[in-house]
Amino acid sequence: MTTIKPTVNVEAQAIEAKKAAKKLAMLTTEEKNEALTHLASILEAEYQSILEANEQDLENGREKGFEDAFMDRLALTKERIFDFANGLREVAELEDPTGHVLSDWTLENGLGVEKVTVPLGVIGMIYEARPNVTVDSTGLALKSGNAIVLKGGSSAINSNRAIVEVLHRGLEETKVPKEAVQFIDSTDREATQQLFTMKEHVDVLIPRGGGSLISAVVNNATVPVLETGVGNCHVYIDKEADVEKALNILVNAKTDRPAVCNAAETLIVHKDWLNENLDALTKALKDNEINVHGDEEILKVMPAAQEAGESDWANEYLSKDIAIKTVSNAEEAIDHIETYGTKHSEAIVTENGETAKTFMSLVDAAAIYHNASTRFTDGGALGFGAEIGISTQKLHARGPMGLPALTTVKYIMSGNGQIR
Amino acid sequence: MTTIKPTVNVEAQAIEAKKAAKKLAMLTTEEKNEALTHLASILEAEYQSILEANEQDLENGREKGFEDAFMDRLALTKERIFDFANGLREVAELEDPTGHVLSDWTLENGLGVEKVTVPLGVIGMIYEARPNVTVDSTGLALKSGNAIVLKGGSSAINSNRAIVEVLHRGLEETKVPKEAVQFIDSTDREATQQLFTMKEHVDVLIPRGGGSLISAVVNNATVPVLETGVGNCHVYIDKEADVEKALNILVNAKTDRPAVCNAAETLIVHKDWLNENLDALTKALKDNEINVHGDEEILKVMPAAQEAGESDWANEYLSKDIAIKTVSNAEEAIDHIETYGTKHSEAIVTENGETAKTFMSLVDAAAIYHNASTRFTDGGALGFGAEIGISTQKLHARGPMGLPALTTVKYIMSGNGQIR
Repeated sequence: MTTIKPTVNVEAQAIEAKKAAKKLAMLTTEEKNEALTHLASILEAEYQSILEANEQDLENGREKGFEDAFMDRLALTKERIFDFANGLREVAELEDPTGHVLSDWTLENGLGVEKVTVPLGVIGMIYEARPNVTVDSTGLALKSGNAIVLKGGSSAINSNRAIVEVLHRGLEETKVPKEAVQFIDSTDREATQQLFTMKEHVDVLIPRGGGSLISAVVNNATVPVLETGVGNCHVYIDKEADVEKALNILVNAKTDRPAVCNAAETLIVHKDWLNENLDALTKALKDNEINVHGDEEILKVMPAAQEAGESDWANEYLSKDIAIKTVSNAEEAIDHIETYGTKHSEAIVTENGETAKTFMSLVDAAAIYHNASTRFTDGGALGFGAEIGISTQKLHARGPMGLPALTTVKYIMSGNGQIR
Repeated sequence: MTTIKPTVNVEAQAIEAKKAAKKLAMLTTEEKNEALTHLASILEAEYQSILEANEQDLENGREKGFEDAFMDRLALTKERIFDFANGLREVAELEDPTGHVLSDWTLENGLGVEKVTVPLGVIGMIYEARPNVTVDSTGLALKSGNAIVLKGGSSAINSNRAIVEVLHRGLEETKVPKEAVQFIDSTDREATQQLFTMKEHVDVLIPRGGGSLISAVVNNATVPVLETGVGNCHVYIDKEADVEKALNILVNAKTDRPAVCNAAETLIVHKDWLNENLDALTKALKDNEINVHGDEEILKVMPAAQEAGESDWANEYLSKDIAIKTVSNAEEAIDHIETYGTKHSEAIVTENGETAKTFMSLVDAAAIYHNASTRFTDGGALGFGAEIGISTQKLHARGPMGLPALTTVKYIMSGNGQIR
């Protein structure tokens, strides 16, 4: 069973979103919070309509023979929908990121200047078949005073449509205009591409998903993009690394949640340390069922290892596989990270403070760890509350992005006739 | 006389810049400042070689029949070069924007977190035939710890080459590696286009120039862009505007410096105010030699006015011309600005605080003025020190950009074995 929808008018929807954004920007924090908690209640009250639609998506997915992990992300349950609702309630509890006077001063001529945080306007969210993004991103957008245009993966279109229908019914009973949440009801690639260049109506695009989705958006969009996510993260075990710390950090960074972006994908190990601690390292890898892909030196000492090639160094495994590269000094480790890293999270394990300092200065990444696991690069772990994603770009926001990443500033000038 | 150079290797130059950026990032503020003041001295000492090269560009320009304003921007004098040198000394005086700990905290598990400002890395500067940008942008880049790749307009290539040769000789006597300043010695468009997609080696592109240059970069670059400049700014004279304030602000915003981006290009005027103050307005426009392009209502009451069409509303005149649009209320003014504004600087003149508040909330622009001239949107006027440009985008930096706009952040995590 497939669902074919008539061509949608993406531009008209973006224009509606822009109009709604103006109304939304005038609401108080309380009015926005009331809307969010009301949406939470209606999601709980009407979860069955969402489950029914989700069943259609699952049926389509089974017909197409999607793999288990994919089906698992697609599948909704009453419990998951109630989790979405609680997520909205948590966002309601967070501080409103708009209306903050970041600085204010008065020029000599008496002109008052205020630099104030304001919503970005309209957010275009482009994502894969994860219905939770529909709810989460709507909550974050509305809380920060932004309208949102949702373009989710085709395989979840029935679930997403049902969720947005519930949200729209909910918004009718709040001060937030329902046009602030626009759902692109199409499985057409062209609909997504239209969003890429809609600079007049869309202020920012946020791609959520795998590397190919993100690069398609980054390479084709003229609308500014908040780039999130790909993490080809490294743990470098230095010559002077403490054995226990090194093995704990490596195993945690690799195996705690292998499929997330802050998991380690490559171990870089100093040859001297390797020589001294080969047995302990081999045991730790084996005990934790980590599959090794190694360079020449590793193949000599770990017979079970597969040979690592260019693609092992360059890509995320997102599984319990690890690439291992041997080096003769920290500079080689830094060079390897410069060549293959994605500027996400990088760790050094060493008892030598100078080596750590050099590594932390020279490695170019959002988060750099000395003697700790890369797994802490996460809005929740760092205490930011809800997270929009982890930025691997350098402009606007870098690292875990909380609600302030969905705002910009405005200079408000108050005069009584000042001229220059 | 023309100068044809062999094809340059832009990628190799960008890679050199990236390497140099790493060394630059390790220098102290004092070392960077010493380099800047040394560059100032050598520019003054060797100004004659620059003037000779500039004469070649001027000769080429005269042959091609460039207009006076263009030739004026291209022409260097001893005095202008000494001004460039003083500009470098002023940048040396500014606060170093890197190494600031924006926030720091400790997680419950003892992991220390510091959010620190760091240089962006490599800046690609793409600009028109203004040799001053070569010096100014180099100074700002080096002060903020960034390497720079310079691609200036073809008509200034001899001047730019001579300037960079002097700067390189100067840098040899400082701690700043001369490879941190790369000059793309080519008049080939392809050289510029190569910079557009060099994401691996270039961290940000900054276009400086007219609208067509900026949109060429924004529409074609996959490297993130700091978008600066086009200002189609409006002054709205409300029904309840004070006559003296309104006329002073209008005349100042239009005529103080008509060619700059924060100059007013369109007057939006409430019909009631116009009826009451027609004579005063007409006199002010005439006394200040402002040429009027008006809508139907204006043509009826100002016989000397030309008819304004779509292009009058949409474009900057950058001259003593103004478009005048009549409206019946503030909402119409806001709608007009939404349609034609470039999100730069917008002003309302009114004695009604509520109307001003609505205008300031609903108009989407970097700077919004109540009863003051748009001319204050300027790093110098606002006290930011040297200015990289005025951002009309919403991400990263909005409005006048000082040195902090050339930095990003890094999360520095210090642990003793923390895992998750």
